[in-house]
Amino acid sequence: MQDFTSLIQQTVKHAVANTVKEMLENCKFEGDHANTTFAKNLFLANKKKKEQMYLVIAVHDTEIDMKALTTHFKAGSGNLRAGDEAVMEQILGVKKGAVNLFGILNDTDNKVKLVLDSRIVAAERVGFHPMQNDATTSITVSDLHKIIELSGHNPEILDFSSLQSEAAPSGEAKQAPAKKAPQAKKTEEKKENAHQLGIEYTKEQNFSKWYQQVITRSEMIEYYEISGCYILRPLSYFIWESIQNFLDPRFKKNGVSNCYFPMFVSEAALSKEKDHIAGFAPEVAWVTKSGKTNLPEPIAIRPTSETIMYPSYAKWIHSHRDLPLCLNQWTNVVRWEFKHPTPFIRTREFLWQEGHTAHATTEEADVMVLSILDYYADCYKELLAVPVIKGRKSEEEKFAGANYTTTVELYVPSNGRGIQGATSHQLGQNFAKMFDVWFEDKAGQKQFAWQTSWGFSTRSIGAMIMVHSDDKGLVLPPRVAQIQVVIVPITYKDDDSNTILAKAEEVYNSLKAAGVRVFLDDRENYNPGFKYNHWELRGVPIRLELGKKDIEKGEVRMVRRDNGDKAQMKQEDLASEIPHMLNKIHNDMYERALKTRDEHMKEASTWEQFMEALNAKNIVQTPWCNVQECEKKAKDKSKEESLKIMEQAGEEEEVLTGSAKTLCLPFQPQTPLVAGEKCFHCGEEAKIKALWGRSY
Amino acid sequence: MQDFTSLIQQTVKHAVANTVKEMLENCKFEGDHANTTFAKNLFLANKKKKEQMYLVIAVHDTEIDMKALTTHFKAGSGNLRAGDEAVMEQILGVKKGAVNLFGILNDTDNKVKLVLDSRIVAAERVGFHPMQNDATTSITVSDLHKIIELSGHNPEILDFSSLQSEAAPSGEAKQAPAKKAPQAKKTEEKKENAHQLGIEYTKEQNFSKWYQQVITRSEMIEYYEISGCYILRPLSYFIWESIQNFLDPRFKKNGVSNCYFPMFVSEAALSKEKDHIAGFAPEVAWVTKSGKTNLPEPIAIRPTSETIMYPSYAKWIHSHRDLPLCLNQWTNVVRWEFKHPTPFIRTREFLWQEGHTAHATTEEADVMVLSILDYYADCYKELLAVPVIKGRKSEEEKFAGANYTTTVELYVPSNGRGIQGATSHQLGQNFAKMFDVWFEDKAGQKQFAWQTSWGFSTRSIGAMIMVHSDDKGLVLPPRVAQIQVVIVPITYKDDDSNTILAKAEEVYNSLKAAGVRVFLDDRENYNPGFKYNHWELRGVPIRLELGKKDIEKGEVRMVRRDNGDKAQMKQEDLASEIPHMLNKIHNDMYERALKTRDEHMKEASTWEQFMEALNAKNIVQTPWCNVQECEKKAKDKSKEESLKIMEQAGEEEEVLTGSAKTLCLPFQPQTPLVAGEKCFHCGEEAKIKALWGRSY
Repeated sequence: MQDFTSLIQQTVKHAVANTVKEMLENCKFEGDHANTTFAKNLFLANKKKKEQMYLVIAVHDTEIDMKALTTHFKAGSGNLRAGDEAVMEQILGVKKGAVNLFGILNDTDNKVKLVLDSRIVAAERVGFHPMQNDATTSITVSDLHKIIELSGHNPEILDFSSLQSEAAPSGEAKQAPAKKAPQAKKTEEKKENAHQLGIEYTKEQNFSKWYQQVITRSEMIEYYEISGCYILRPLSYFIWESIQNFLDPRFKKNGVSNCYFPMFVSEAALSKEKDHIAGFAPEVAWVTKSGKTNLPEPIAIRPTSETIMYPSYAKWIHSHRDLPLCLNQWTNVVRWEFKHPTPFIRTREFLWQEGHTAHATTEEADVMVLSILDYYADCYKELLAVPVIKGRKSEEEKFAGANYTTTVELYVPSNGRGIQGATSHQLGQNFAKMFDVWFEDKAGQKQFAWQTSWGFSTRSIGAMIMVHSDDKGLVLPPRVAQIQVVIVPITYKDDDSNTILAKAEEVYNSLKAAGVRVFLDDRENYNPGFKYNHWELRGVPIRLELGKKDIEKGEVRMVRRDNGDKAQMKQEDLASEIPHMLNKIHNDMYERALKTRDEHMKEASTWEQFMEALNAKNIVQTPWCNVQECEKKAKDKSKEESLKIMEQAGEEEEVLTGSAKTLCLPFQPQTPLVAGEKCFHCGEEAKIKALWGRSY
Repeated sequence: MQDFTSLIQQTVKHAVANTVKEMLENCKFEGDHANTTFAKNLFLANKKKKEQMYLVIAVHDTEIDMKALTTHFKAGSGNLRAGDEAVMEQILGVKKGAVNLFGILNDTDNKVKLVLDSRIVAAERVGFHPMQNDATTSITVSDLHKIIELSGHNPEILDFSSLQSEAAPSGEAKQAPAKKAPQAKKTEEKKENAHQLGIEYTKEQNFSKWYQQVITRSEMIEYYEISGCYILRPLSYFIWESIQNFLDPRFKKNGVSNCYFPMFVSEAALSKEKDHIAGFAPEVAWVTKSGKTNLPEPIAIRPTSETIMYPSYAKWIHSHRDLPLCLNQWTNVVRWEFKHPTPFIRTREFLWQEGHTAHATTEEADVMVLSILDYYADCYKELLAVPVIKGRKSEEEKFAGANYTTTVELYVPSNGRGIQGATSHQLGQNFAKMFDVWFEDKAGQKQFAWQTSWGFSTRSIGAMIMVHSDDKGLVLPPRVAQIQVVIVPITYKDDDSNTILAKAEEVYNSLKAAGVRVFLDDRENYNPGFKYNHWELRGVPIRLELGKKDIEKGEVRMVRRDNGDKAQMKQEDLASEIPHMLNKIHNDMYERALKTRDEHMKEASTWEQFMEALNAKNIVQTPWCNVQECEKKAKDKSKEESLKIMEQAGEEEEVLTGSAKTLCLPFQPQTPLVAGEKCFHCGEEAKIKALWGRSY
């Protein structure tokens, strides 16, 4: 046996535990180890081919379907079942009832395959206890990996909840489940229940799988039977409501009224403006039937509402006195894209606001466009703690039909992509001319109105998650967290748990009175460690731990989700300190994101520098000629070179597109353009600084 | 000439006015006459058939298209044009430049056809002045009708704005207008602009046309190119926001979280529950194409979200600890009905909230159903000033699949119909069994969840309008009025208008500071009378008139929209008095609506009494056997008898359906059921009191 004295471990002696329930009741770890996840350990073997042996380390309540496991290991010749006790003692050096991870160290010939529950890997600490034993040892998962490394085993990490669908005949798992008797359904449902699962992928190594797990396991998103459509669960919809509460009063203060236009539009109206519709046509969803009746003409669902709203603007606007006309609506829109859908970021139905204004002069329209852009930037900064770069879109990237498009652009760490946060368009008189939106000015002259349109969508929630969240799950900026503070009372069997719970309620009430969104997790069926993981996964900004010793000292242990910092706080200071701490967390999150973004915003003056920076997951500012053709060529060239590099590297990470494009022409470039600088790509005279990146 | 000394008139001498503009500037009426609408008077004749003569009395700025007028009067043989001066003097007794209404009294042989602008009829007072004259007389429209009656003429009331479309070839008016040069479009647009038009129909005599004019001319609704879809303009959307702000916090306080489920649902999922879908199937809109691609399977747009949400409920609910699950969403839904659409009341797309909850016991579900119903009733009473009757739906009328449905029912005066305000359903375990929503109770037993669903829609806005509004237009309850108080400064040329405007701004600021939604109408291009009509049509609860004399006395003249009451108020009291007055108006509106409703809620114990009450536009409470078959027969019978009565009476008013049905079984009937009472219809033993009515 090796010497493990260097392990960060804690061993607890406890009463004999005959069941998992008793084990959970009898065995309590303290301090850092309070969040220990309890494991069960199974030694299995193939019924016929007995040399096929497995040591399975799973979370105590993970349901293990032996049939599905048999299928998974293609042990077709015989089902898996409990291995022979004598063999086990010989190889692992443990007796029945004492199976545990440490035994794998005795398997020097690597006869036993080690199988790790993905939920174990996602835990912070794991407690190994042999069933019916009276002691349990808790170690960190990091130390668990060290032990396995020492043992020379290459473990298979397995998501037991996915075994069922893996085992099912192809396609069946995707079908609507047939109605089952409760008895039959139980197992399947428990497996489907992801709410106790942690994150198995890391943000750095497999960004897209990490993202998918973060949003589903935190209970922000539920996948839905229609591809590209997702359910916004309360945790994420709360963020959307926070965004509405932030933006809506600002719009109104700026003279904008809310309204609602129908979501249907006739083919004739939709197609009126050819350039505008060209971009949307392939994505338009068409209603052609009601009940069993074919409609006389197909009717489109809005992909955006210019063609729905502007005919009314033409009716309503006659005189300069009718201007400005400033309307906004909070709606759903549908763009039936065929690209790979990504929840929040690219979905077939999404929620947004779309503002549409008409003004008497181009200057007034300019002012509107920029005030709105400021609101958008403020919303990212003040609410979502995400830094943005304000700028103008290039000719290639602007909204079709706009005079110019302004944008707020974000940087996504780990995958190095840029992402468009929201846009505000100055439409000039282009749409007014198409839709006959004109007025009589003060001199009695007919003038076409100057229009703007601007939108902010649920995509922002996805961008926020990508920026802040980590390998433990969601990290929510406090201002959009439905629960800002969770209180976890730490009660042991021999403690006076009533005293602790009473104190926890006291803390709860004082924080609630201070306007903090606080939740007291007094569930009796989960241990503190489980609760820590539960709330960390869901991104709750502050955890307050309240144990016997804390109470004796009149203190509470505060743990920050964003950086893991821990501190003891005086109970009487909480009502004043926590609101400050929430603001501090917000600011720290913003500053950290800004620092990361700035570290990954490089400057390049040559193509080689540019590609090098790009491939190192940066966004890049360059001197640029501002010619549309140059951008097109740079796009193509970057794509080709990226493909080559990918082929050479055999890179496995999925890439949505390898090409770079301008994210924007920043209003405030990192360094100003110097006279005589050349375009980094075509070598012609540079006219402006452009920000480039691979983009969502 | 008759003696008109009894007329309520005011004559003003003024400087010679060569143009309408000068006339408006020079001629100002005071006091009650300040809202005088100025008329222009044209004597026209057929170019060829000179005996065809017309005296047209129109609002000074109504555009009169002579060609359209010619078409309207089928004067095909020759265009209309100004009539011969000599003939005019002979018949009307007036010279050129002095044409006016009073001349018609001289046409004792009825040679001249009198044509009245519908806007004149809708005005309160009309000022007749001969062009280039130096005096104008203002009379009430009621006196105008008296004069015409005395003259023995039968005037034609004409909507000049509709002449254009009337004159257009059949069908053309409905087509999307082709793009026109500004020059060509101007006339047409001015005609289309309805915002200066009053209400031409009365609520009593032509309810549906009255309703249509109220909602369009007040700028609540704009009609849209897709039938059954309407644009909610800021004035009406503000009401929807007020409803959201009222209901949403109450839902949340009751443990409900907001979320968003996709609006699309597969045919398989939608059709899963046959009974439930049967009611919706004919109204479901189907998406079958995206771009030019046919979808592999048609996808439905939600008519309601049970089949979209409950599969997820089955996934999320495992244990009694997961209950209650209480979700709500604010969305649009689509029911492609083929019945006659009515804005707000029956539309193909509408906005609503739908709440869906799951509970461990039927008692908890009962409590939820009734708390929600209370919120709905409170919303009608506290926000919309509309009284409701709470009750349970009969078996015939309940939501398909529900254990029972509760409802708030309203009475619409003038047309005597009942209208369902909102419903809250106890679904029992019916949906839970279909969708596998079950949980383990505390004893470890599997139980199906008890569910509720409930919805409140934009229909409520229509109901509110029907209850309160009058022949002058909209009457808004103060709490949902976007503008609660409008200030109209009354300035005359010889006044110090700066002083008046400064005072008006002072009043504006003090009211704004007091939290009142106030608007200062300081438009220079409209006279006070125009403004009075403008804001009365739009339902603004309080008008404050501020003239020279008011200021001298430190007073403001307050006019209530709901009952026309006028009062002088001290300027310094406004900030404290107006909020009270707004509450008083709310309460008065509610009490008035309650009184009207109660006067029209009759009791009947026999079929004859029942039909008599029904046909007198009442809703009727009866002793009832509570048997479904009896209701069906009563429905049919009332329909047949209604048809007969209609045929005999030749009634012209449109009737959506002649049949009566139960609106609800009131929780609190007018009088309790007496032992031994018989069913008013079938004569069997009565079990309950039922409220019946013709219904929307």
